[in-house]
Amino acid sequence: MKHDREMVKTIPLKNVYINGSFWADYIELVRKEVVPYQWDALNDNIPDIEPSHAIRNFKIAAGMEKGEFHGMVFQDSDVAKWLEAVGYLLAREEDAELEQRADEVIEIISNAQREDGYLNTYFILKEPGREWTNLCECHELYCAGHMIEAGAAYYQATGKTKLLQVAVKFADHIYEVFGPEEGQTQGYDGHQEIELALVKLYEVTLDEKYLQLSRFFLLERGKQPHFYDIEAEKRNGSHHFPGKMMIEDKSYSQAHALVTEQKEAAGHAVRFAYMCTGMAHVADKYKDEKLLAACRRLWRNVVDRQMYITGAVGSQSYGESFTIDYDLPNDTAYAETCASIGLIFFANRMLQIEPDREYADVLERALYNTVLAGMSMDGKEFFYVNPLEVEPQAAEESRRYDHVAPVRQGWLTCACCPPNVARLIASLGQYIYTVMEETIYTHLYISSDAKITLNNKEVLLSQQTNYPWDGNVEITVTPEAEAVFALALRVPAWSEEVELFINDQAQALPMPEESGYILLSRKWKPGDKIRLQLSLPIMLMQAHPRVRHAAGKTAVQRGPVVYCLEEADNGANLHNIFLQSSQSFNIKEGSEHFRGLKIITGEGNKKPADHWGEKLYKAQETIPPQTMPLTFIPYFSWANRGRGEMKVWIQTNI
Amino acid sequence: MKHDREMVKTIPLKNVYINGSFWADYIELVRKEVVPYQWDALNDNIPDIEPSHAIRNFKIAAGMEKGEFHGMVFQDSDVAKWLEAVGYLLAREEDAELEQRADEVIEIISNAQREDGYLNTYFILKEPGREWTNLCECHELYCAGHMIEAGAAYYQATGKTKLLQVAVKFADHIYEVFGPEEGQTQGYDGHQEIELALVKLYEVTLDEKYLQLSRFFLLERGKQPHFYDIEAEKRNGSHHFPGKMMIEDKSYSQAHALVTEQKEAAGHAVRFAYMCTGMAHVADKYKDEKLLAACRRLWRNVVDRQMYITGAVGSQSYGESFTIDYDLPNDTAYAETCASIGLIFFANRMLQIEPDREYADVLERALYNTVLAGMSMDGKEFFYVNPLEVEPQAAEESRRYDHVAPVRQGWLTCACCPPNVARLIASLGQYIYTVMEETIYTHLYISSDAKITLNNKEVLLSQQTNYPWDGNVEITVTPEAEAVFALALRVPAWSEEVELFINDQAQALPMPEESGYILLSRKWKPGDKIRLQLSLPIMLMQAHPRVRHAAGKTAVQRGPVVYCLEEADNGANLHNIFLQSSQSFNIKEGSEHFRGLKIITGEGNKKPADHWGEKLYKAQETIPPQTMPLTFIPYFSWANRGRGEMKVWIQTNI
Repeated sequence: MKHDREMVKTIPLKNVYINGSFWADYIELVRKEVVPYQWDALNDNIPDIEPSHAIRNFKIAAGMEKGEFHGMVFQDSDVAKWLEAVGYLLAREEDAELEQRADEVIEIISNAQREDGYLNTYFILKEPGREWTNLCECHELYCAGHMIEAGAAYYQATGKTKLLQVAVKFADHIYEVFGPEEGQTQGYDGHQEIELALVKLYEVTLDEKYLQLSRFFLLERGKQPHFYDIEAEKRNGSHHFPGKMMIEDKSYSQAHALVTEQKEAAGHAVRFAYMCTGMAHVADKYKDEKLLAACRRLWRNVVDRQMYITGAVGSQSYGESFTIDYDLPNDTAYAETCASIGLIFFANRMLQIEPDREYADVLERALYNTVLAGMSMDGKEFFYVNPLEVEPQAAEESRRYDHVAPVRQGWLTCACCPPNVARLIASLGQYIYTVMEETIYTHLYISSDAKITLNNKEVLLSQQTNYPWDGNVEITVTPEAEAVFALALRVPAWSEEVELFINDQAQALPMPEESGYILLSRKWKPGDKIRLQLSLPIMLMQAHPRVRHAAGKTAVQRGPVVYCLEEADNGANLHNIFLQSSQSFNIKEGSEHFRGLKIITGEGNKKPADHWGEKLYKAQETIPPQTMPLTFIPYFSWANRGRGEMKVWIQTNI
Repeated sequence: MKHDREMVKTIPLKNVYINGSFWADYIELVRKEVVPYQWDALNDNIPDIEPSHAIRNFKIAAGMEKGEFHGMVFQDSDVAKWLEAVGYLLAREEDAELEQRADEVIEIISNAQREDGYLNTYFILKEPGREWTNLCECHELYCAGHMIEAGAAYYQATGKTKLLQVAVKFADHIYEVFGPEEGQTQGYDGHQEIELALVKLYEVTLDEKYLQLSRFFLLERGKQPHFYDIEAEKRNGSHHFPGKMMIEDKSYSQAHALVTEQKEAAGHAVRFAYMCTGMAHVADKYKDEKLLAACRRLWRNVVDRQMYITGAVGSQSYGESFTIDYDLPNDTAYAETCASIGLIFFANRMLQIEPDREYADVLERALYNTVLAGMSMDGKEFFYVNPLEVEPQAAEESRRYDHVAPVRQGWLTCACCPPNVARLIASLGQYIYTVMEETIYTHLYISSDAKITLNNKEVLLSQQTNYPWDGNVEITVTPEAEAVFALALRVPAWSEEVELFINDQAQALPMPEESGYILLSRKWKPGDKIRLQLSLPIMLMQAHPRVRHAAGKTAVQRGPVVYCLEEADNGANLHNIFLQSSQSFNIKEGSEHFRGLKIITGEGNKKPADHWGEKLYKAQETIPPQTMPLTFIPYFSWANRGRGEMKVWIQTNI
């Protein structure tokens, strides 16, 4: 296998500075609210929520404090994700106080690491001697993966190697323990994560053994006789999570078949998405067509048959998992925030392999809807579950909604989602561009300044845009000197009309390639200005005719942003509101809670309810529907005004 | 309290002979298929289903065989329900072979009963010494109740007292063990049933202590400190069903509040309905206005807010229970067959207190829809769960439908429903009439000959009707001699036009009373003929505007029969079919599977699906809907042609 610097296709985060309001505001929210809040949570300084104990676990393991382990078996990963987010923030700008705080944590972690490289406070404190005996359930490699990601991110941001050394030492230990040789364990983790982390470690260290180990874990998965059964037998069948079927239900962790043989998204959605992310990158590095074909196949299944219009995946609470094709209930959806983050990781890795706008379209769908919905607009509360329809009283009292919260929650016992949102937003700069040979691909439209290396020369790209509210994007291209190269600009699938100007001159628009990018190959001079005008129509979206739960309904979407109705604007009983298929709508500037956002207004019909009375069922009365004004808000901004009904898919007369 | 024969308001089953085709065919199905099939099931003679072991448990307890107890803690009740059904069949007509078989079982049961009257094979065989230590979970009084019901029914049918003696001896033992005195247990069963059974035992024996005991159990329920906690503490907190929350969740068994204080239907739907049945009758016998007010209040809550259009109740799988007002999902409904049977019991007891057509309307709704749907048309397979919408692949593979079967099943491990259907159908003659003072109330229109005692004289009433397919009912009235009395005829709420003839002379129709009955008070001569013509319009039903899951949808109903679409007639993707609110329909004679039934045909619109392609979401296309012929079949007859989609509530343009 060949690998050299030319093959690195991402732009280092340090070289991309997001400005403008939309995303820069979110990143600042992460810096000012989310990361400090999470710091307090990790240190058990937030009243009224269950103590995390995560930092204390490390201090105890490091011998700095006395006490016992507390928390989930994967508690360590919360600290790692926090450090990773801090790394991304420090890559953006210096923050001495934050860096010092992180360095102190890293010192503790380093002291907690065992001499042989092993690092997991649960096993060190609670079950010493039982390391690597229950991979299926106990998340050891999952936690390792997060620590590796943190080490890589922190090194890339600060140049400091201490956490990277911890990661390398741990990865080297894992490389000893796991592998195809006799005396090594032929196994893999019940929660995929190490696979994608090892690729990141390879990208930082260029040490190919990490890539090999990632491939080993991926290709080992699902082999018979089954690893979960082998290790369970060695443990005499003991369980860490007794009620859960992790061992028995192999598909829960996508271990029911070889990864190259899997045809449909199944099982726990986060595990699935993390696995696919690792698969995509390993497939690329090894030019493994079979693995790549599996990635494409699984992508197709998700995107064509198992994804909500909000980019959410995992339609059932049981196992936080996928179900079957076209089975996408709106109210009982699981639709975990972390799963959409995983889908973004997967899409990003696929974009690095083959620039195709569909990957970026889906990435944006997940990002602008489910991921942003996962966090309150003040950055302090979080949704783990993101249904597309909520009736609060039912959500609170009817047990089939046990997993649904009608308002966002603080830090939870299983606190996977909040730090995941933080690290994604803080690292968003990495998702805007990729470079492939002589071409710079622009996938996302985000106001930013980027420094991109092409043929060992630098090109500065400065984007100015009010996207996603506005389809105008200005890009100033500043190569070190005049140079011939190509810029590829994504035209999202929903943008039907596109205009392009270079230095204010309208361009005969080159047809977008089949992949959905306009390719501008020319000699670029410093200061060349591109203006791209994407149309942003308000779209009444329909779902595939096989989606039962969206039948007879439409959803309002503009650009990548899906809209919803809330009770606060439209009254209760949203289910009685009907749209006409010929409906027209207007864009309006949001105010108060929605300042800076665009809302959508229009008219709908509502079945009159006043004269109904008490009877539960009656022969139809022909009372004409009443027209009423409707206000749609971006789905991601729902539930920021307290408890109330919300609905994405609205009934529509055909 | 006064009680004498005049107060008995039901007609002995022996005095009502159902003929005509609809119900007589069902009763014969119970005789020829259900009861023999269940006999084989109880005796473990049916391959491919889990052995019941229920008869063997009794044989072992009787010392007639060696072995251990197997089955659920309430396994005995299956045998009791079978005997009760046999009793009802023998009341209809002699069947020496069946009677002999039943007598043999009764002999075994009698031998299994302990000297002190105690009878429960689980505790006798498996936990001797632990009797009455876990009322909350272990169904001892529930099983006792079923044995009492069987004893009463078998005695009333055959005049044989052996099983009645078993019941009396057991009830007397219970009367010793439970009660308000020191040394007695102040407790009650976790599954209501004994309460209504004791009323039946009172009705047969006229021994008031059984009524007192029933009232004791009812009024004890929900008192603080809580009986479940007291007995659990005595057991050091041990559980019979560890995963279940029966002890902690008091509302599961309606023990969260005094029965007189309960305002809404909550918890396990069968328990609730059985409790209300007992409450109604005890309220009546004791003229307990507070208890009666609770019955009316709980009835109103169910009927106005928590009942499916099919008369099903219990909208969630968790705890097979009620949820909250207007929360009636169609696809994830639990809607247990037994719960609708319980609702019929409750309605019937309320009818005996206050003739009001609503009780009978609801009784018919439950009977002609959910209860009949509970059994296949060949009497061999059963639904426990009766959703109003099924997509078979999702039902089989998506875990939120774990409780839903897309086709009926044979005998199950928890075999409550099949024998419950059998005993209800076999005893249906008891539900047609009640007598109150000088008035004979006709609640149900069923071809039958009934011998009714009024003022110590007999009146023969012969009904001829093709109800529910036809609204014409002929009743021949034959008193012993000319006599003045009143006949009250129910006018169902859905029947808008009514004509009435007496001896072929049109009658100026007396206004139905507020309660919905036409009162015909006159001197009746032998052979007087009443002809009642009820209109039976096809109704497009709507649900209350707060029912989210029926919003924008209509259901087709004619008379008490609710209709549905099936895939076999209308193709797949039933969710894409739309009705127009101005839709007109036609009645047709059914053929093949539906011989003897009426089906409904008409036209609908279907969203075209052919040109859609693979994309999961698209901006709306304005392809005109295609018209298509629709065939609706009675809901109760669905899933008799194999696996396929079914839908009751159909989308409708407003």
